[in-house]
Amino acid sequence: MDVAVLGYGTIGSGVVEVLKVNQDVIEKKAGCPLRVKYVLDLRDFPGDPVQRKLVKDFQVILQDPDVKIVAEAMGGLHPAYEFVRASLEAGKSVATSNKELVATYGAQLLRIAEEHHVNFFFEASVGGGIPVIRTMNMSLTPEYFIEVMGILNGTTNYILTQMEEAGATFEEALKQAQEKGYAERNPKADVEGYDACRKIAILSSLAFGKTVDYEQIPTEGITKITLDDLKVAKALGRKVKLVARSYQADGKVFAKVSPLLLKLSHPLASICGVYNGVLIRGNMVDDIVLQGKGAGKKATASAVVADIMTAARYFPYRISARCHWEEEILDLTDSRLMAAAYMIRTDCPVAASTPYFAQTVPVSGVHAFTTGLVNEQQLSEIREALTEAGCGILGMIQMN
Amino acid sequence: MDVAVLGYGTIGSGVVEVLKVNQDVIEKKAGCPLRVKYVLDLRDFPGDPVQRKLVKDFQVILQDPDVKIVAEAMGGLHPAYEFVRASLEAGKSVATSNKELVATYGAQLLRIAEEHHVNFFFEASVGGGIPVIRTMNMSLTPEYFIEVMGILNGTTNYILTQMEEAGATFEEALKQAQEKGYAERNPKADVEGYDACRKIAILSSLAFGKTVDYEQIPTEGITKITLDDLKVAKALGRKVKLVARSYQADGKVFAKVSPLLLKLSHPLASICGVYNGVLIRGNMVDDIVLQGKGAGKKATASAVVADIMTAARYFPYRISARCHWEEEILDLTDSRLMAAAYMIRTDCPVAASTPYFAQTVPVSGVHAFTTGLVNEQQLSEIREALTEAGCGILGMIQMN
Repeated sequence: MDVAVLGYGTIGSGVVEVLKVNQDVIEKKAGCPLRVKYVLDLRDFPGDPVQRKLVKDFQVILQDPDVKIVAEAMGGLHPAYEFVRASLEAGKSVATSNKELVATYGAQLLRIAEEHHVNFFFEASVGGGIPVIRTMNMSLTPEYFIEVMGILNGTTNYILTQMEEAGATFEEALKQAQEKGYAERNPKADVEGYDACRKIAILSSLAFGKTVDYEQIPTEGITKITLDDLKVAKALGRKVKLVARSYQADGKVFAKVSPLLLKLSHPLASICGVYNGVLIRGNMVDDIVLQGKGAGKKATASAVVADIMTAARYFPYRISARCHWEEEILDLTDSRLMAAAYMIRTDCPVAASTPYFAQTVPVSGVHAFTTGLVNEQQLSEIREALTEAGCGILGMIQMN
Repeated sequence: MDVAVLGYGTIGSGVVEVLKVNQDVIEKKAGCPLRVKYVLDLRDFPGDPVQRKLVKDFQVILQDPDVKIVAEAMGGLHPAYEFVRASLEAGKSVATSNKELVATYGAQLLRIAEEHHVNFFFEASVGGGIPVIRTMNMSLTPEYFIEVMGILNGTTNYILTQMEEAGATFEEALKQAQEKGYAERNPKADVEGYDACRKIAILSSLAFGKTVDYEQIPTEGITKITLDDLKVAKALGRKVKLVARSYQADGKVFAKVSPLLLKLSHPLASICGVYNGVLIRGNMVDDIVLQGKGAGKKATASAVVADIMTAARYFPYRISARCHWEEEILDLTDSRLMAAAYMIRTDCPVAASTPYFAQTVPVSGVHAFTTGLVNEQQLSEIREALTEAGCGILGMIQMN
């Protein structure tokens, strides 16, 4: 069966590599050989055997009836969306690693795939090689999902781990991440939490059945996290993690991306470096936690190839149809309405008489305290009391 | 679509409960309502609504063409095997939670299912609610599996956790586990490692493609573990876990069930209480770790219901065919041939001149040391040297 790969960057070249290196097992398990017939890229790759499969015009792929499966690894919304849509409409199954595409057009593309009796798969769009999409869609099918919570961005987790373990500042750790190829030259999408936000939007849409608009998810990154915050976290027996989370309570759905102070016993607290982890809570199975490499060429490409193989294995049967994700936008409830406890770091000692004060965190040279459970209104009271006492807030992180 | 449940014990009654409580979401995702038409059990359950669905004769189920799916939750080999086989031969798909059945007849039942164009599913046979079977069969399909390693028995993990956290002896912790319903009155299958052995046999068969005979897996339980061992583990910065493991190296496959001293940073070291965890290593995706409730009525039943739903959702398409598990027995290589380091606890201080001695473990009132990497032959040298020195071995645990 012929496959076309769109984009020969990290993931696209990884897909070609995985299909080649593991050719034997892939042919056996897919039930047929999988051949890469075309690779679409505007660049040339002289010396790379891919060169003779390179095409620069997508129409060549679209109009070739031998191509039954398209792997999209271009990233970005356009022209990825147009190419994926045209492929589906031409009766080709699609496997994509493009989280922005899936977060924005996932429900629509699933509908188009259904109308054209083909598959739209996107395992690699969240969590790299971790099979979280298939676990939600095919394994935890009897569950009412209560919560999805994850460390979904490897770059920020690497930075936080470096700060914690090597005492690097945020800037130093970011530079190391860039040198190691974990962070882009423009790291904004990672460090501001936008990447994690798109990924939790996809998981939340699958969990709750309607489209979660990522622009409605309150998102805070890790750029304000300092070494002092990590010292306080340690004194509290906790870890600072960038957590993307959504959950439902009383028929309302909440979603948020922000740093959280996780207890050491929390299953996501031990996810370090570039690893990702996802906790899924169902009403019957309780908590399932998946962890693994959340990024990286081979791990992510393996997830794309698994999707290609599923499309091939059951061809011409369409297996992705019953993915319950409607185009209708889900009403999110403002997560600030939910009560939470906070760690607040200040520039002077704070009196125990401060409203909702719970305890001082004893760290030499740092002033920090924790609060009881407070909502946004009560948090404002705390802020006012601190201002009146002449105390400035240097940092504030929610505790979980 | 009509379902029959064989056995109304913990899992069987859980299946009926999950199908009822989550009826809405199950109907939506299965694409049709799932009705329990019969429950097979020799007992009566007066007052339980199940009473009017109870049958005592399996032939009633077998001969009813409306029953398309059979959930087997009887446990044990016979008559479970005969009932499952007859169901498949009669064109009914089967979902089972029976690890003994799957470990013994898995490959054969998969072949029979294929011949009769029906499904044989067994997600619940390993890891309770953790979707490890589907992850190996449907998600990590492009991988050459290198290793599978798991904490697969919740009872023993609960006992070890109680010993570690509450300072209970093995006997006390076992008694607590029995009182809480985690351990059977005859706990041998759990504490001697037989349960974990059958489960790793299933996972290894899926990983390596041929039947791993569980009787060939060297199996050691936790009955010899003492509080002194846990003290030594703590001093080494490690945890004692009952680990079931198989891996391939140089074309050979090794398998073993035994207590292991895991470093705290190992992803399975933090799996506590009745939770289970599985690490799967593929050559492309590297390590994927899954954790969750490894036992318990609702979690395990949820996995059975997920299988029932898959059979219903794709009916009459058979989806379990490409499970690569042949009936041929896999040649296991003796795992004692592989070098490993050990912690050895003795009844007197041990000289640093002992062969392969690495370090003394400093624990008050306990004599223990670690070795370098040794094979079985070298381990014998250590044993002889200790005997010559008049030192008795009180405990020995492999380090990982």
